[in-house]
Amino acid sequence: MEPAERVVSHLQEELQALKERLLTMGGLAEESVRMAMQALVERRPGLVEEVIAADDPINRLHIEIDQRCFTLLALHQPMASDLRTIVAVSKISTDLERVGDLAVNIVEATSRYLMHPPVKPLIDIPQMADLAQSMLRDALESFVSRDTTLAESVLDRDDRLDALKTQVFRELLTYMLQDPKTVAPALDLILVSRHLERIGDHATNVAEDVIFLVSARDVRHHAADHPTEPDA
Amino acid sequence: MEPAERVVSHLQEELQALKERLLTMGGLAEESVRMAMQALVERRPGLVEEVIAADDPINRLHIEIDQRCFTLLALHQPMASDLRTIVAVSKISTDLERVGDLAVNIVEATSRYLMHPPVKPLIDIPQMADLAQSMLRDALESFVSRDTTLAESVLDRDDRLDALKTQVFRELLTYMLQDPKTVAPALDLILVSRHLERIGDHATNVAEDVIFLVSARDVRHHAADHPTEPDA
Repeated sequence: MEPAERVVSHLQEELQALKERLLTMGGLAEESVRMAMQALVERRPGLVEEVIAADDPINRLHIEIDQRCFTLLALHQPMASDLRTIVAVSKISTDLERVGDLAVNIVEATSRYLMHPPVKPLIDIPQMADLAQSMLRDALESFVSRDTTLAESVLDRDDRLDALKTQVFRELLTYMLQDPKTVAPALDLILVSRHLERIGDHATNVAEDVIFLVSARDVRHHAADHPTEPDA
Repeated sequence: MEPAERVVSHLQEELQALKERLLTMGGLAEESVRMAMQALVERRPGLVEEVIAADDPINRLHIEIDQRCFTLLALHQPMASDLRTIVAVSKISTDLERVGDLAVNIVEATSRYLMHPPVKPLIDIPQMADLAQSMLRDALESFVSRDTTLAESVLDRDDRLDALKTQVFRELLTYMLQDPKTVAPALDLILVSRHLERIGDHATNVAEDVIFLVSARDVRHHAADHPTEPDA
């Protein structure tokens, strides 16, 4: 019994460490999005390079977390409940890596945008950013606290983000049609709004993983009650 | 021994069925992209609804495959090698579901685009579509045949897709600046080119999963050689 217990305890420690690394990664991804929006809204091209540089540690964490997940699977043959957590961590880590990439996409569009005078005061786009960031924060919080109600609220907010994106698109198209000088910068604002929408999509993915992870617990508990009936 | 063997054999059958469902899903996603491009290139608005309707079976397969993966994890406690396959199938299924969504995004842009006269003869965008489709097909083929060389070739093609996207962007921007009438339709072509680039990104994800799945085999074999040394 004793060596088996030590292995299980080692697994629990590893899982805890894994979750902490995921939250560190989430914090970095959030910070990248925040800086990217600051570069755009406060017209600070100096932040562009900072956001690009900040993507490296996020990518390294993604690789580290994925490798840790697979090592845990390979060495521990963990039980269903822990397995599901590992799979969820691996999926969430993939989503966070994309959020880091999208922050880079935002500053790429921003660095072009800042070469022109402002098209218009930015109102809807910062609102989209606030919404996407709150979705991302709450999706990660719902993972930590296994709070499906909070996760559901993330899903609800995705429609609002979509509606804002459509509104931004229509408004900027009007500017572009009226004044050719606005075409290039307005196009970059449209791209920024789409990157923000996709950040919301990744937050939605995370929230869906949390709902599946938590609600599937019942299935797992049922399965654990009948270990000799794999066809049940 | 006998019941355990029956369980293992059941797992192998389930894994085979799972892979077949994934390939069915891949075929549907490829077909959606093909139809979406046909709608754009041959100016056939009638295909728009078909692509939107075709997304339903893809989404249902995504849910089915994800549930099957988790059921296998919960009921079988499969060994590392099978576990990795299950995790890969789950990840690839997520990518294919997004490809279906992107085909829908392409026809959404197309239905707006077709309300205007053509901006220009389409050359680079169909080329992007051919490239993205070949990447997707080969990524799935590399999964079936566990061919990392083919998977690597998918990764190589992503740079070319990126370069084409940048070229499309620059060229269409020129049209938009010269003639306000082209602003709305050219913008939709730019969006189509970005959707195609993202289809390439998802093919790249699949190829990366295959490389990780196949190359990690050695690690797993090593781990299987030392089952009593979980910390090794």
